[in-house]
Amino acid sequence: MTTKMAINAKDIFRNQHRLIRFIEQSIRLCSNQSLKTAQKHAKQQAEPDFQITTSISSAYTAAPEPIKHDADVGQQFAAVQLAVRLASPQQLQPKPDNDDALSFGKVFTDHMLKIYYHRSLGGWQRPEITPLENLVMHPAAKVLHYAVELFEGMKAYRGVDGKIRIFRPNMNMNRMNLTARRSGLPTFEGEEYIKCLSRLISIDSEWVPHSEAASLYIRPTLIGIDPTLGVASSDSALLYTILSPVGCYFKSDSDGAVSLLADPRYTRAWPGGVGNRKMGSNYAPTINVQKEAAQKGLQQVLWLYGEDHQLTEVGTMNIFMFYVNENGEKVLVTPPLSGLILPGITRDSILTLARQLGKFEVREEVITMPHVCELLNQGRLLELFGTGTACVVSPINRINYLGTDLYIPTMEQEKPIHEWIRETLTDIQYGKIDHPWAVVID
Amino acid sequence: MTTKMAINAKDIFRNQHRLIRFIEQSIRLCSNQSLKTAQKHAKQQAEPDFQITTSISSAYTAAPEPIKHDADVGQQFAAVQLAVRLASPQQLQPKPDNDDALSFGKVFTDHMLKIYYHRSLGGWQRPEITPLENLVMHPAAKVLHYAVELFEGMKAYRGVDGKIRIFRPNMNMNRMNLTARRSGLPTFEGEEYIKCLSRLISIDSEWVPHSEAASLYIRPTLIGIDPTLGVASSDSALLYTILSPVGCYFKSDSDGAVSLLADPRYTRAWPGGVGNRKMGSNYAPTINVQKEAAQKGLQQVLWLYGEDHQLTEVGTMNIFMFYVNENGEKVLVTPPLSGLILPGITRDSILTLARQLGKFEVREEVITMPHVCELLNQGRLLELFGTGTACVVSPINRINYLGTDLYIPTMEQEKPIHEWIRETLTDIQYGKIDHPWAVVID
Repeated sequence: MTTKMAINAKDIFRNQHRLIRFIEQSIRLCSNQSLKTAQKHAKQQAEPDFQITTSISSAYTAAPEPIKHDADVGQQFAAVQLAVRLASPQQLQPKPDNDDALSFGKVFTDHMLKIYYHRSLGGWQRPEITPLENLVMHPAAKVLHYAVELFEGMKAYRGVDGKIRIFRPNMNMNRMNLTARRSGLPTFEGEEYIKCLSRLISIDSEWVPHSEAASLYIRPTLIGIDPTLGVASSDSALLYTILSPVGCYFKSDSDGAVSLLADPRYTRAWPGGVGNRKMGSNYAPTINVQKEAAQKGLQQVLWLYGEDHQLTEVGTMNIFMFYVNENGEKVLVTPPLSGLILPGITRDSILTLARQLGKFEVREEVITMPHVCELLNQGRLLELFGTGTACVVSPINRINYLGTDLYIPTMEQEKPIHEWIRETLTDIQYGKIDHPWAVVID
Repeated sequence: MTTKMAINAKDIFRNQHRLIRFIEQSIRLCSNQSLKTAQKHAKQQAEPDFQITTSISSAYTAAPEPIKHDADVGQQFAAVQLAVRLASPQQLQPKPDNDDALSFGKVFTDHMLKIYYHRSLGGWQRPEITPLENLVMHPAAKVLHYAVELFEGMKAYRGVDGKIRIFRPNMNMNRMNLTARRSGLPTFEGEEYIKCLSRLISIDSEWVPHSEAASLYIRPTLIGIDPTLGVASSDSALLYTILSPVGCYFKSDSDGAVSLLADPRYTRAWPGGVGNRKMGSNYAPTINVQKEAAQKGLQQVLWLYGEDHQLTEVGTMNIFMFYVNENGEKVLVTPPLSGLILPGITRDSILTLARQLGKFEVREEVITMPHVCELLNQGRLLELFGTGTACVVSPINRINYLGTDLYIPTMEQEKPIHEWIRETLTDIQYGKIDHPWAVVID
């Protein structure tokens, strides 16, 4: 029985070879025909009449469940305790001239937020805003050895009305607390954190770019700092936040689209792992694969999973596909929250908006490379794109899969759905349309 | 075809339920009978005549292949450049009184070794020994966000002749460089590092415990310190080393054996991942599972993999099983280096010594929980134990598997193989027998 049911590493690779031969044949077929067919097909299709949604149904805006803290976490911090130590005028840094040309995460604002946790002192300590400064830590700090660390990615946007907004912050706080729990780090009150963060952004408000092509990236980070080498949960932690004015994260081809390396030899996440939590440990193993992609002239990695080569994530983004089904109907599909992918807030927002729009079917369903190939082959694949806080939407124009280039007609559509998504979300984020997802910082 | 071959998360869990029902039945059978049968069986077996090996065949001592550096790593560091800044007499810390009662990794010696790497300055910089001091780093340092970090675990032993020895350091250097490459961090000359490390140990030599129950734990650590938030390889890094006098790492039951939680819902490593590299990212996801084990009164986690519940690692150790095969012959088995487990240096040493001994068969082969259960049921399982630098050998007396306790007769054997292994290895490490694996620090 065990031999029959055994799926060990060898089996997977052995079966993969057979699968790969099959897929290679399909690719040869489809890579030649797909682009032309898809272009022809797209023109034949009537374009849906997309309109910007100005209000959303409450059915889709339910806030996530509030986090229940473990009994032994101890005292929580509160925003009313916040202490502020401002940078001296001499410490203030010049702001970058050209917001649009900013490279991601290299320039930081003048201040940061720090909240220490010490179990021995009763729990979370008083939050403080300080000038941006180096962290000082013991060389045995757990974060440096066992990756006891997690983060979030958020943004502050300067709206067309001059007001600064953040986007669905309660979603980030919920995810951050779920990740903290999975990491053996203390949970905290997300609402109190957001109040402290808002104060930080207000203090550094002149760093929020005066541009719709840029924003202020927010990096909440939680690290375990116990100076002991046991592989165990950390009794001391630091929740800190730094801010960085940014343009778009991803380098792209001249048409604004990205090309991907899809290599089934590498796996990002696995059942029983932590692929659905924003732990630092999910990122280190990806860096060398990303480097390999770059060496092949490709911009991002398309992470596959399993023998059927499921598409899971692209770079650090969720993935969406827009295609025509066998009945000639358009469908927007993204992989389900199976534990293998990050529960993206942009992902959730897109699903909500698309379902409200009601112009096409919206599905959360496994997408496999053989299916992508089949759709391409039959001219039914319209768009593939990544989604995330860094870029909202990142269209994909090429996938290098098992050594062959698949050309994806994402940029060939006349009224692409990814453009509608980008516009709708940025209109909300930059305050062009009033929306409960966009929270104004006072 | 894709449906037939698809192994996604759902499938695995669905099939697991069926498997679990089967195994539960077997467990009920075997957990009652196994201990008595095994004890009886063990007494019937003639004990092999173990003798300490005083020399080893060169066939088993081949040094690992030297690392080839990438062309763009730049200059290497050399031990002759080493700068030393000693702690002032006021900075020196008192040494702990009772070496045997030391808890793991909480007390550190007076000095540390630091070697910076800056691509912009041409590569590796001059090595320096300094007083043990806090590290200062930018809050955007990659190590704090994306777990760009790796480490090694080594020990220095004070021999019966008063000389200080380290054990097979070239193996650690090889593994550390392989891990560095997988992490997008710079590789280095292991031999030069060992010379610098030897100097550090000489300076802090009075910290090497005067006891055979204790040793000086060595923690070489390599972290990426670029202060930029892109998920990319780090152009700056710090290779540093701290030293900590230690007793045995693991807490154990009164008989010196550990009990394990084996929960197939958690996976440590997977094909296409980095389970065979000593990256910090392999450890963070284990901490909460270890906490869960502790809450159930169990000391370590037995990491299973796949539908057939393969045994991969125990805690942070490799695992070995000693059993009687169907022909009545004794066999020592450990899982193969399939990519799912760390290539342990203690593991390699045990395989070498056991093969030299030639008294029983030695295999590298997948071990599954159903097989463990079958052996227990038939009274053919003699010993199960973890192996690693921290404890050499850690015998296992109980596994909580799918909610049921399996009692393992490891401590019931009259002349257990794990005791022979521990004695042989510690005799080499503490200089009781002269052996090329033990390298004297001048």
